[in-house]
Amino acid sequence: MRKWLLAVALILMAFPSSEMAQSKPLILASQGSFFVGGETKTSKDLSSNTTGPGAGDEGDVTINQMYVQYQTPVNGGQHAPVVMVHGCCLSSKSWETTPDGRMGWNEYFVRKGHSVYLADQSSRARSGFDATKINAVKLGHAPPSELPSIFMVSHQTSWVVFRFGPTFNTAFSDEQFPVQAADELYKQMIPDLNGFLPTPNPTLTNMAALAVQLKGAVLMGHSESGFFPEEAALIDPTGVKGIVTIETGCTTTLKSDELSKLAKIPILIMFGDHLGDIPGRFSSFWTTALDSCNKFVQQVNDAGGDAQMMYLPKMGIKGNSHMLMQDKNNLQLADLILGWVDDHVEGKKSGHHK
Amino acid sequence: MRKWLLAVALILMAFPSSEMAQSKPLILASQGSFFVGGETKTSKDLSSNTTGPGAGDEGDVTINQMYVQYQTPVNGGQHAPVVMVHGCCLSSKSWETTPDGRMGWNEYFVRKGHSVYLADQSSRARSGFDATKINAVKLGHAPPSELPSIFMVSHQTSWVVFRFGPTFNTAFSDEQFPVQAADELYKQMIPDLNGFLPTPNPTLTNMAALAVQLKGAVLMGHSESGFFPEEAALIDPTGVKGIVTIETGCTTTLKSDELSKLAKIPILIMFGDHLGDIPGRFSSFWTTALDSCNKFVQQVNDAGGDAQMMYLPKMGIKGNSHMLMQDKNNLQLADLILGWVDDHVEGKKSGHHK
Repeated sequence: MRKWLLAVALILMAFPSSEMAQSKPLILASQGSFFVGGETKTSKDLSSNTTGPGAGDEGDVTINQMYVQYQTPVNGGQHAPVVMVHGCCLSSKSWETTPDGRMGWNEYFVRKGHSVYLADQSSRARSGFDATKINAVKLGHAPPSELPSIFMVSHQTSWVVFRFGPTFNTAFSDEQFPVQAADELYKQMIPDLNGFLPTPNPTLTNMAALAVQLKGAVLMGHSESGFFPEEAALIDPTGVKGIVTIETGCTTTLKSDELSKLAKIPILIMFGDHLGDIPGRFSSFWTTALDSCNKFVQQVNDAGGDAQMMYLPKMGIKGNSHMLMQDKNNLQLADLILGWVDDHVEGKKSGHHK
Repeated sequence: MRKWLLAVALILMAFPSSEMAQSKPLILASQGSFFVGGETKTSKDLSSNTTGPGAGDEGDVTINQMYVQYQTPVNGGQHAPVVMVHGCCLSSKSWETTPDGRMGWNEYFVRKGHSVYLADQSSRARSGFDATKINAVKLGHAPPSELPSIFMVSHQTSWVVFRFGPTFNTAFSDEQFPVQAADELYKQMIPDLNGFLPTPNPTLTNMAALAVQLKGAVLMGHSESGFFPEEAALIDPTGVKGIVTIETGCTTTLKSDELSKLAKIPILIMFGDHLGDIPGRFSSFWTTALDSCNKFVQQVNDAGGDAQMMYLPKMGIKGNSHMLMQDKNNLQLADLILGWVDDHVEGKKSGHHK
């Protein structure tokens, strides 16, 4: 046994895991970042600068790649890697330090023995996007109508749609989102350029490819990307060992061969509270989403699958927002997911996470 | 002494530091991410979607914030934190795993005892950008001419301007950039939206504010951001304990009171090789940059400062590209910077990095 392995073992034995997970040193076997996918595009619209850097440049650029950042704990080989993909108007920041400064799911899952892979969706954040579509309009090579759709979401809309409370800056009495830190959430909300992407969305093919590359992984999506794990598995199920779908609408029109494919993969779906408690044009948004996922769970199970709905208020866990990974009880929810991975993906009825 | 501290000490003593830096476990006291700065903007142009998410949304969004990701080693309090800011058309990915899969400066500096803060420039990557300026054109609220400049840089231009070789896909015989992995570099090259930013560039004020928040830090910039540390210090020098300027042009027209301000901060400037060896319109780009920085070093030192030029080929280190942090000898160059921090920032003539 190498000396460092002995020393690491000493650290790991030195205190119980619940204590470990909070503020003790984080010991990584490795970490890093890389890209999945990407295609070459040749364009004369690389730059709309007329002077200075980039001016007049033309040639090849890479688009549709997906940036992935990972950490592997010292005992990471024992458990399934988990790939986390953020939702609309967000980046992988979603999974990191919470708006009020607590530990995010990325680090918690690593501390619980899983390698974690954070992916910025293709066309978002460190994955870049195809700016030639904007420059073409600036340069007069295309009309403004050909600008792809981009959207940002306002503080006001987020507050209500993310179910912090019924009206902007008023919180539900049992609200689990740390509303005093909402401004810090707004800083991680960035423009969504998925309207720039071809079909199928490269994030889906890139997620499927990443799962293969990892020789098996649990894919987790949230909100906009909540059903991405299922869609990635329909493209190529080879590497998808488990699916975690958080707070999204589910497709209920899959064909039987598609359902058969998904029935081979354990699926967990999780929803928070107050789904029917927001007024205005989003009043039925979340209840409709829950209904669709309940139906999807039934369809998968009817096809012989293993799909499970964790509708938190029904389990006695109240007040959760749309941002489960940032709520005050985020680590309690993480434990539910980790326990499900134990039982359904790794097949250990008395798993390490219990 | 707490048990974990003893165990960590055992790990640290178990093998020499050069060995440690390569593949042994990375032990972190803490890690996380947060934002610096940011302003609220009210707009009716948040979304150009006519249906689905974001459609018709209006209200407040946050812009000009700067995303920062950090790691602190167990002994991080003993050394100056280092803030790394990437260059044009890039993100903090620059400092991470190299295109050919070796350790980046971010992890190496942590392993050498420094807390490291990676900042995505305001308007880039996880920091987001102000998409209302694009949507206004799509929605007919502004003419195409009001689209801010965006630029991407082609593979062809990067190869030559980054000094991988004299012509695309031909490398200098002693080239230090891992040219076989150039495709992986191209994947990290993303659109540059600094044309969206007000003056002064919020990245500068955010860098200065971050240095204050850290109660003192070394600011490091590269290429587009190479002179950002100096500019940040001119806005507020309070937290700037040291400056590392890598591969950029320097301003030589600072006033004497500005030079006096910078003369209180140790400054290191580093350039690679082949500055005069690229043909075409960039043939004098790098030699002019070097000349300007030599002049700037002289000006700072004439004002009583401590500025040092490390022009690598003059030091016998040959073949380095523009991407010093990704070159094959990147850790050797990191050691030069760490040694300089020892001597000039921390004032230890026989520092820990030697």
